[in-house]
Amino acid sequence: MGIDPGTTIMGYGVVLQQGQQMKLVVMGVLKLGKYANQALKLRKIFERTLELIQEYHPDELAIEAPFFGKNVQSMLKLGRAQGVAIAAALHCDIPIFEYSPKKIKQSVTGNGSASKEQVAAMLQTLLKFDTTPDYLDATDGLAAAVCHFFQSKLSLTQPTVSGWKAFISQNPGRVKG
Amino acid sequence: MGIDPGTTIMGYGVVLQQGQQMKLVVMGVLKLGKYANQALKLRKIFERTLELIQEYHPDELAIEAPFFGKNVQSMLKLGRAQGVAIAAALHCDIPIFEYSPKKIKQSVTGNGSASKEQVAAMLQTLLKFDTTPDYLDATDGLAAAVCHFFQSKLSLTQPTVSGWKAFISQNPGRVKG
Repeated sequence: MGIDPGTTIMGYGVVLQQGQQMKLVVMGVLKLGKYANQALKLRKIFERTLELIQEYHPDELAIEAPFFGKNVQSMLKLGRAQGVAIAAALHCDIPIFEYSPKKIKQSVTGNGSASKEQVAAMLQTLLKFDTTPDYLDATDGLAAAVCHFFQSKLSLTQPTVSGWKAFISQNPGRVKG
Repeated sequence: MGIDPGTTIMGYGVVLQQGQQMKLVVMGVLKLGKYANQALKLRKIFERTLELIQEYHPDELAIEAPFFGKNVQSMLKLGRAQGVAIAAALHCDIPIFEYSPKKIKQSVTGNGSASKEQVAAMLQTLLKFDTTPDYLDATDGLAAAVCHFFQSKLSLTQPTVSGWKAFISQNPGRVKG
C-alpha cells in the first residue's frame, strides 16, 4: 500500500504482487479541505489509514515523504500528517518505507522530474486501468506503492539504501524479501 | 496529561485535578537519542504515549507545540513526533489541546520568556515535589499539563481561543468544562 499524506488531500493506492507481476487493488483520495481545522484533518488521516490497513491487509506501507518544503509552518503540518499516518502503520505492526517524490517519479517513469500527469499515464499503462482518477493525488499514493514494488524487486539482488536501512537491518523478521 | 514530544527526548507529566487543586501523579522522560533512526524513535513515542494513556487514563492531553523552528528539516521531524503522539491520543479518543512554549511559560510562571529552570522551580512549588528531575524535559511535559489545568479553569468563565477552538466547538461532548 502506498500513501501520499498531505494537509489538503491524501492519496492512496494498493497493489497486489502476483509473482513478478502487480495488479491494482484500489486507489483513491481522502479530501481534507472540508475539515475546518488541523485536529480533524489529522483524525481523518489516522482513521482512513487504519481503515485501509484493516480492509486490505497490506504487508508493507510506502509513504511519499518530501524532505524539503516552502517554509517551517508547512513542514510542521506535513510532518504531523505523515506522523499520524505512520502511527497507523506502527499500530498495525506494518513495516514503513519512505521514498522522496523524486525517487518515486524516477522509479515509476524513469525520470525523476516527471510531471504528475506523466506519472499517472505510466501507472495507467503499468496497471492497465481505464479511467483516470479525478485527483492526481490518488496516483501519487499509488505511485509510492509501485515504487516500493520495484524497489523490493531490486532488493532481491541488491540491497536498497535508505533512511530506513538501519530499521530494516535491526528488524530482519519484519521485512519481506 | 501533558507531553513535550521532541526528536531526542520526550517529556511527560500527569496531574490529577481535585476540586480546584491539582496533584502530581507522575512525570518522566523518554530518551530517544539511543535509537539509531527516526522510524524507531517514532515507534517509541507512539508506544510510550499509548502506554501512558492506558496506565493513567487522562481525560485530556496537552501538547507543547512549537510553531516555529530553525529549519524545514527539523520542523518535519518535530511534526512527525507530534503526529504520532497526537495519533496515540486520537486512537484512545482523548481530546487534544496544544499550547505554544510561550503560552505554557506564561501560564505557569507568569512570564512567557521564563527559563526552563524557572518553569521547573515554579512547578516544584505548585506541585510540592522535592527532587528535581534529571531532565528538564520532564518538567516541560508537566508544564503543558499544568498550563492546560489553568486554562481549563479559566475557560469556566472565559472561553480560551486557540487553534483547537473550532474542534472544541464542534465536539462539545468531548470537552470537559
